[in-house]
Amino acid sequence: MTATIPRVVIVGGGFGGLYAARKLARKPVRVTLIDRKNHHTFQPLLYQVATAGLSPGEIAHPIRAIFKHSKNIEVLLDEVTGFDLAHRQVLLHDDRLAYDYLIVAAGATHAYFGHENWAPIAPGLKTLEDATEIRRRILLAFEIAERRARLERKLEPINFVIVGGGPTGVELAGAVAEIAHRVVAGNFRSIDPSRARVILLEAGPRVLPSYTEDLSHSAERQLRTLGVEVMDNCMVTGVELNRIHFGDSSLEASVILWAAGVAASPLGKMLDAPLDRAGRVLVEADLTVPGHPEVFIVGDMASVKQADGKPVPGVAPAAIQMGEFAAQTILDEVAGQTQRVRATDRPPAPTPATARKPSLGAPARGAGFHYFDKGSLATIGRNAGIAQIGRLHLTGLIAWLAWLLVHVFFLIGFRNRLQVIWEWGWAYLRYQKGARLITGNSDSITPDEVHDETRREPTLEIPAPASMPERKAS
Amino acid sequence: MTATIPRVVIVGGGFGGLYAARKLARKPVRVTLIDRKNHHTFQPLLYQVATAGLSPGEIAHPIRAIFKHSKNIEVLLDEVTGFDLAHRQVLLHDDRLAYDYLIVAAGATHAYFGHENWAPIAPGLKTLEDATEIRRRILLAFEIAERRARLERKLEPINFVIVGGGPTGVELAGAVAEIAHRVVAGNFRSIDPSRARVILLEAGPRVLPSYTEDLSHSAERQLRTLGVEVMDNCMVTGVELNRIHFGDSSLEASVILWAAGVAASPLGKMLDAPLDRAGRVLVEADLTVPGHPEVFIVGDMASVKQADGKPVPGVAPAAIQMGEFAAQTILDEVAGQTQRVRATDRPPAPTPATARKPSLGAPARGAGFHYFDKGSLATIGRNAGIAQIGRLHLTGLIAWLAWLLVHVFFLIGFRNRLQVIWEWGWAYLRYQKGARLITGNSDSITPDEVHDETRREPTLEIPAPASMPERKAS
Repeated sequence: MTATIPRVVIVGGGFGGLYAARKLARKPVRVTLIDRKNHHTFQPLLYQVATAGLSPGEIAHPIRAIFKHSKNIEVLLDEVTGFDLAHRQVLLHDDRLAYDYLIVAAGATHAYFGHENWAPIAPGLKTLEDATEIRRRILLAFEIAERRARLERKLEPINFVIVGGGPTGVELAGAVAEIAHRVVAGNFRSIDPSRARVILLEAGPRVLPSYTEDLSHSAERQLRTLGVEVMDNCMVTGVELNRIHFGDSSLEASVILWAAGVAASPLGKMLDAPLDRAGRVLVEADLTVPGHPEVFIVGDMASVKQADGKPVPGVAPAAIQMGEFAAQTILDEVAGQTQRVRATDRPPAPTPATARKPSLGAPARGAGFHYFDKGSLATIGRNAGIAQIGRLHLTGLIAWLAWLLVHVFFLIGFRNRLQVIWEWGWAYLRYQKGARLITGNSDSITPDEVHDETRREPTLEIPAPASMPERKAS
Repeated sequence: MTATIPRVVIVGGGFGGLYAARKLARKPVRVTLIDRKNHHTFQPLLYQVATAGLSPGEIAHPIRAIFKHSKNIEVLLDEVTGFDLAHRQVLLHDDRLAYDYLIVAAGATHAYFGHENWAPIAPGLKTLEDATEIRRRILLAFEIAERRARLERKLEPINFVIVGGGPTGVELAGAVAEIAHRVVAGNFRSIDPSRARVILLEAGPRVLPSYTEDLSHSAERQLRTLGVEVMDNCMVTGVELNRIHFGDSSLEASVILWAAGVAASPLGKMLDAPLDRAGRVLVEADLTVPGHPEVFIVGDMASVKQADGKPVPGVAPAAIQMGEFAAQTILDEVAGQTQRVRATDRPPAPTPATARKPSLGAPARGAGFHYFDKGSLATIGRNAGIAQIGRLHLTGLIAWLAWLLVHVFFLIGFRNRLQVIWEWGWAYLRYQKGARLITGNSDSITPDEVHDETRREPTLEIPAPASMPERKAS
C-alpha cells in the first residue's frame, strides 16, 4: 500500500464502528479498528445472557473473524487514551496512530446521575461481564434463599428490583419474572421461587415512554400477566445493599438492576467539542466535530436531531446508519479526489487532508445525516412484546415474533443466528433456560458468598481466580 | 417423608456423585447432593472450552435442573469442611448434615509434585474457570504478539508448551495446534499465527502411556501431522514466567499448560482413612472406608485395583460405574431391611445404621466392585485420534468418530448433546472456532495486560470486576 492511501481509524467495535468498517472493507482506504475487547457484542440481546437464556458466545463474535477476509482492515486490541486532533493522531497507551479520517464510536455506559456509589450494588447492563455478573446475582439469590430456608427454617422474601422502565428494564423484568415463576420453579426443595417478587420501578408516568401511550399500557398489562409489579412515578432516592428507597418508602431487595440511564463514553470529553447534558458530542449535520471535517462521531456518542427536532434514539439501527453514513462520506471524498488526481495527472496525489477542502461543498458533504426510523420493538418475556412501525402498532405474540425475526436477522455471524434460533426454539418448547451457570471467580461458591450477603457486592475483596489450585484445594 | 427413610448424603456433583444420585432417584431414600458449583461439568470436553471449540454452557448443566423431577433429591450449593464419621455427620461451614449413608465423590485436582508455585504460571484444566482462563491466555498470546509486531516492528516467537503427554495433554496440544495453524491464521496482519510452535513435553518415553505402544506411536505421528512438536523423555525441571526448563535446556514460552499430574481431593485426608501416594483413599472391595461400611468413596478419590492388579483409571466411565455400584449397594441393603421389617411387622423400623449390620455378609456386600473397561479413546485435533477397545485398535478418522459418538452420547442434557453436534458440525465445515472470546475480568484489556507479560499471571493484582462503571469509564 502506498502512503497516499487514506488512513481511516475507527474507535470502537460496536454497531457504529463495525458497520463503518464493513462499508470500508475492500475499498481504497487503510482501516484500523480499535477496541478494548476482542469481540463485537450484540447488545440488544445482552439481557438474554443476563437472564440465562443465551450464552455469551452466542451474542458475541470475534472482531478479527468478521474482517478476516478484508485485508485493508486491521484490528487492534487496545485502549484509546486520547486524541491529538491538531496532528491527526489517536493516542494509545504507548503508541500513536496517525489518521486522515477518524470515526469515534465508543458508545455509552451507565449513568447514575451523581450516585456512582450505587453502581456496584445495582449494576447496569452494557457488557458481557455485566451480563454474567447479573446472571450470577439472580441465580445466587435463589441459592442463598434456599440455604437460609434450610438452615434457619425461615422463608425470606426474594425481591428482584429493576430500576428504569425503558426497553432494557422492561426486557429484564419480563425475563427475570420468567426465570422465577417458570424456569427454576420446582428446582428447589425448601423455597418456592414462584413466590419471588419482580418489581419494575419507573420514574415517569409510564414504561417505554418512547412509545405511544397505547403501547406503553399494553406493555404494562403484558408485564403484569407475567407477574411483574410495575410501579410508575417511582423515583429512586437511595440504593443500599439489599434495600432500595423510592419516594418516602423503601423495599428489601435481593437483587437490584440498573436500567435507568446512560451517559456517552468519556472519550467525548477528549475531543474538545461541545457536549450535551448526557456527554454526547454536538456534531454537525454530517456527524463531524465542528471545525474538524475529518473527525466523525457515530452511535450513542453523537447528539443528532431528527427532522421533527426529536433526538435520534440511542438504538442499534441509528448507530448502524451513522456508521455507514460516515464511511460513505469518506469514500465519496476519496473517490472524488482520486478522480481529480487522475484528471490533472499530477503525482504524487495530495493527501486527503489538503485535497478534501475544495470538495467540502461537494454533494458528499452537502447531504447531512438523516435517521430512517424503521420502527421500534421491545420484547416482554416469552412470546409477548410491542412493536411500533410507523402507524402500525403490534402487541403480544406477533410483536414478539417480529422482534425475534429482526434481532436474529441482524445478529452478526451466520452461525450465531442459527444457534440462537435453535436455543430459543428449544427454550420455547422446554421452558428451560440453558445457560443457567453461576460462573466467574464466584463459580465455586465461597462460604461468605452463600452466607454473607455483603459478599455479593463486587467492590469488596475479590476471591482469587478459581484457576489457582490453592483455591481448589481449600 | 418419615424419619425411618434412610438419609444418603453425596459429596460432589461430578460423574461419580451424579450417577449415584441418578440411581437413587425416586427410590425409598432421602438424598442430599452437595457441590460447590451449581452445575455438573462434562470434564472430558473441558479442553474444547479451553481451545474455543465449545462454550462453557455447552458442557455444563445445572445440577438442580438434572434432578428437577426427582423429589427425593435435594441439591445444596455449599462447601464441605469435614466429616464426623462417629456421629455420621457431614460438616458444612455453619451446618451439619446427618446421614445414614455417605458417598464421597469430590474428584481430583492438579498435582505439581511439590512445585505449587508453578500453578499460576502453568494452569491445569479441571474446571470451567480453568478452561476460560486457558482460552484467555491462548488468544491473548496472539494479540500480544500482534501488538508487539506492530509497535516494535519485531516478530517474537509464539510458543505454546503443554506439559504432560496423557490424554488431556494430547487433546490440548492437538487443539492448540489447530487454532494456531488453521483457525486464527489470516486473522492477523502483523504476525503469522501459523508460525507459532506447539510443544508437547512428556517425561516418559512415549505419550499416552496407558495405551499400547502402537497406538502411542500412531498418536505421536498424528500430532506431528498437526504441527505439534512431541518431545519424549523430557522431565520439566523449572517453570518461570514465559520460560520453561527441562533437562539442562530451556525454552521461551508464551503460554504454559499443565497436564502432568492429578491429586485426589483433600477431602480424603479428612476421612482418617489410609491414603495412597496420590491422596486417594484405599477403599475396601465394596468401595467403603475400612471400618465404615456406610461410607463410600467413588471416582478419582478412590484407589481401587482391577482383577489384573492394575489400578482402575481415573476416567469418567470408572467414576460412573463406582457411583452406580455404591448406590446399588445402598438400595439392596435398604430393600433387604425393609423386607425384614415387613416380615416381623415390628414398627418403628430400626434405623438403617443398626439394621444394616446383620446384612453385612449378605449378597449386596458380598460382591465387590469390578471395573468394566469399555475401552479408551483419545482425540487429537480435528478428525484424528486413537481408540483401544479390547483387542480392537483404531486410529485416525474412525477413532475420532468413535470418540465423538461416545462423548456426545454421554453428555448430560439432551439439549447440550444436539448443540455440541451442531457446534462441531459447523466448526468442521467452516474450520471456525465459535467461542473465541477473551472473557472474564480481563475481557476489556488493560494496557498492562497487553504490554506487560507479567499481568498474565493471575496471582498478581486482580482487576476490579468489569461490571463496575468506574472501570468502563477509565
